[in-house]
Amino acid sequence: MGSAGVPTQGKSLYHTIRMPKGDTVFDGTADTPDDKWIKRRPEMVRLTGKHPFNSEPPLTLIKESFYTPQELLYVRTHGDTPQLDEKTHSVKVDGLVSKPLTLSVEQIKQFSKTDISMVMVCAGNRRKEQNMIKQTVGFNWGPTGCGNVIWTGCLLRDVLLHCGVDTEEARHVCFVGADKLAHDHYGTSIPMSKVMDPEGGVLLAWECNGEPLLPDHGYPIRVVMPGYIGGRAVKWLTNISVSKEQSTNYYHYRDNKVYPSHVDQQNVGPEGWWEDNTWCINDLNVNGAITNILHQQTHDISKPLKLSGYAYSGGGHRIIRPEVSIDGGKTWKMATITVEPKTQYGRTYEWSFWETEVQLTPSTEQICFRAWDDAMNVMPDRPNWTLMGMLNNSWYRIQVTKKAANTVELGLPHWAHKDAPNHPLNVLKAPHITDTLGGPTSTTTTTTTPAASASKGGAAPAVAPSVALMGGMAVTCSLAAGLLGFALAQRKTV
Amino acid sequence: MGSAGVPTQGKSLYHTIRMPKGDTVFDGTADTPDDKWIKRRPEMVRLTGKHPFNSEPPLTLIKESFYTPQELLYVRTHGDTPQLDEKTHSVKVDGLVSKPLTLSVEQIKQFSKTDISMVMVCAGNRRKEQNMIKQTVGFNWGPTGCGNVIWTGCLLRDVLLHCGVDTEEARHVCFVGADKLAHDHYGTSIPMSKVMDPEGGVLLAWECNGEPLLPDHGYPIRVVMPGYIGGRAVKWLTNISVSKEQSTNYYHYRDNKVYPSHVDQQNVGPEGWWEDNTWCINDLNVNGAITNILHQQTHDISKPLKLSGYAYSGGGHRIIRPEVSIDGGKTWKMATITVEPKTQYGRTYEWSFWETEVQLTPSTEQICFRAWDDAMNVMPDRPNWTLMGMLNNSWYRIQVTKKAANTVELGLPHWAHKDAPNHPLNVLKAPHITDTLGGPTSTTTTTTTPAASASKGGAAPAVAPSVALMGGMAVTCSLAAGLLGFALAQRKTV
Repeated sequence: MGSAGVPTQGKSLYHTIRMPKGDTVFDGTADTPDDKWIKRRPEMVRLTGKHPFNSEPPLTLIKESFYTPQELLYVRTHGDTPQLDEKTHSVKVDGLVSKPLTLSVEQIKQFSKTDISMVMVCAGNRRKEQNMIKQTVGFNWGPTGCGNVIWTGCLLRDVLLHCGVDTEEARHVCFVGADKLAHDHYGTSIPMSKVMDPEGGVLLAWECNGEPLLPDHGYPIRVVMPGYIGGRAVKWLTNISVSKEQSTNYYHYRDNKVYPSHVDQQNVGPEGWWEDNTWCINDLNVNGAITNILHQQTHDISKPLKLSGYAYSGGGHRIIRPEVSIDGGKTWKMATITVEPKTQYGRTYEWSFWETEVQLTPSTEQICFRAWDDAMNVMPDRPNWTLMGMLNNSWYRIQVTKKAANTVELGLPHWAHKDAPNHPLNVLKAPHITDTLGGPTSTTTTTTTPAASASKGGAAPAVAPSVALMGGMAVTCSLAAGLLGFALAQRKTV
Repeated sequence: MGSAGVPTQGKSLYHTIRMPKGDTVFDGTADTPDDKWIKRRPEMVRLTGKHPFNSEPPLTLIKESFYTPQELLYVRTHGDTPQLDEKTHSVKVDGLVSKPLTLSVEQIKQFSKTDISMVMVCAGNRRKEQNMIKQTVGFNWGPTGCGNVIWTGCLLRDVLLHCGVDTEEARHVCFVGADKLAHDHYGTSIPMSKVMDPEGGVLLAWECNGEPLLPDHGYPIRVVMPGYIGGRAVKWLTNISVSKEQSTNYYHYRDNKVYPSHVDQQNVGPEGWWEDNTWCINDLNVNGAITNILHQQTHDISKPLKLSGYAYSGGGHRIIRPEVSIDGGKTWKMATITVEPKTQYGRTYEWSFWETEVQLTPSTEQICFRAWDDAMNVMPDRPNWTLMGMLNNSWYRIQVTKKAANTVELGLPHWAHKDAPNHPLNVLKAPHITDTLGGPTSTTTTTTTPAASASKGGAAPAVAPSVALMGGMAVTCSLAAGLLGFALAQRKTV
């Protein structure tokens, strides 16, 4: 048990829950000269072309083990992966501290060691379902932009106390990574309260699942914190600055926000939304997916259909109620939680695995999944489109299309093309697919909150409810990656 | 601004947001000899008969001011209101502290003073809607089991540090009040992490809205904490004990839990659910209501209909999107937030006020309200029945019944009798009203999680989905109180 007081796992558990190892291979090709030195699992599904390596594991592998192998954990990166050496790397601590320090990795490892087991989640997990409604500013994520891992490191709290942090004045802790991007190094901040909470679990981590961090996951040092979106867990950490204010980093302002739905690519800039940090998100929400069903898989409805998947929530909340429906949400069957997360002091930061069985009928049109957490938050039935497509947690839906007497084909929202006749999101279309877009066929009249400045106060432009798949290279890559992942997924199908 | 670092309000704000004062009168009657000494507002709606004074304000008064007058704040009490004197009252601090102390009220007031502005919410707020589906173990609350107030006191954190709290071993802080009940004094506990978080805002409070606590709200000292359910905010505080374990108090085990829906009055005891503290709840969830519409109010649909209400969430989350729908949730209109909560470090613990206008049509059957918070948690469309009927936050629905050419009658879920033809919950009836009950007409096959012991592992009993109003005295009193409240509400109708 870690001293962080958050759910942690001793090394013994590494052996009780299987963590399959797969072959990793050097990633270099003519297209990716920058990544030639990195070993990766070839199964990883690339979402933004060959480089940078934004990727998620195929659906078939996400639930192979309760703890996700590091090389199968989703990767969100913005550019070249920094080639660092723990012998020479250091992290500078400054800002509202009485003793600013530059710490070597070895010095960081002298602090009391602790583990945190937690689900790491990209805020964009399941974004593809949002992009099918209307393109967001983000690329497509399927439902595997997440994984449950064990981080080992020291409490950032201990480091800051060692540096004489000013707990009266300080309200935010800012992080910067070694990855130099177009506008800046990647950086962001989190509230001081999260860092200083002895149970908050904010770590400077140097191990994942008992092994050194991989280059893709921030080697040699990254910051991690349970219950928060992955975007705050800065990799290749170089700077920690304690501040009265949130990070002023370009990427802190331009990423990880949830605006009202009338804010889109046209008005976000002119109306000054980027500059308004009121819309920053930190906490994860309740989410989950069915992971054992593949796109265009057929099923004999005279037999029971097994369903299984994962579910998680934010804020330390535990999943108490995974449910499936085969009648559009009129009735629900409570699934069994098969692998229970470890809870401590009533909280957990891990995912849950669940399974159940349903008997489809000739009239079954859709299979839906939703989960409730212990604060009675629940996944909503319909997606709520927002500009960055973050925290999408609407019911995970599988479309059921009759093919022959007893045979149906199952369609998944994150694999199908929007025009496919059996695309699950088609069921959500007009009128309510337009509900968040303020379009002419919708009754929505978007207004703004007083938090928004006067410049944002106008009515939303009458955007036609376009249901467009994303254009350009990213699409091609994504679809190609999708096909690769799909092929791999098919190969593994029982 | 308070040193707690949570959203706070200076005294100046007391004057900028009107807090109407009403007449209070001594409450004594032949039926309530124990309360004769207490002054109360006669408008308060009694929910469990004359005594104890479980009460909420009429719907018409809940939004009269952004800060709820103390005498209009809901009251949840289990027995006689202790008659205490701040000159002689004391609070004992013991358990995992090196310097156990008994502190007088005067000594407590020597600690650094701070304010917290927060919505105080009974976990049973809106329980009546759950009781209309199937009786819970709790009495009926309408949607006014909540209020936004400013507490003044000192940080419990400071008191515990003064007492030499053992932050390594301690994981829970237990509270006991002066109210002696059938089984024990009322008591409960909250996680140590919440108490020790400098931003956690856990106070020993002696003032509400700048005035001494009223007897109904814990005079002379109570504990309060933002973002948590009211049931943890122990009134008439006498004991604080720092512990490795949760409170062993009878009421900690028997209250404020959310069990799976197949746990009911029959199996909760025999299957050992009471003893299992896995199901304790602390955090509030996202919730809200329409407060300007009265039951059986008529409306001319040729004119626009103004709607307004409140919304709040837990975990420091801010409401970003209040919405109304007049087509059963197919499309939504975003409402305007009219009174903005104060946020600090990205968090708020206050409610938001909102308003909008809709144009009903002859085909409008229902008006629905839901809210989203900044973690993209949203109120679900349907209620999820659980034994204690807590944290009900399903869409707030108003039924629209045609009466004449242009005239409709509006029906509210918390006023109507279940058999009233226009009861909003009737729209939710079979099949899915039974979804949580495991009844024979439902497809639900309730299973259990591994967290539950083997004794709980059986299939749920086939309970017929009975939609029964609560029986016995409480009903009579509740209805009587309802009529009183309704009469008052009617009188205030514009």
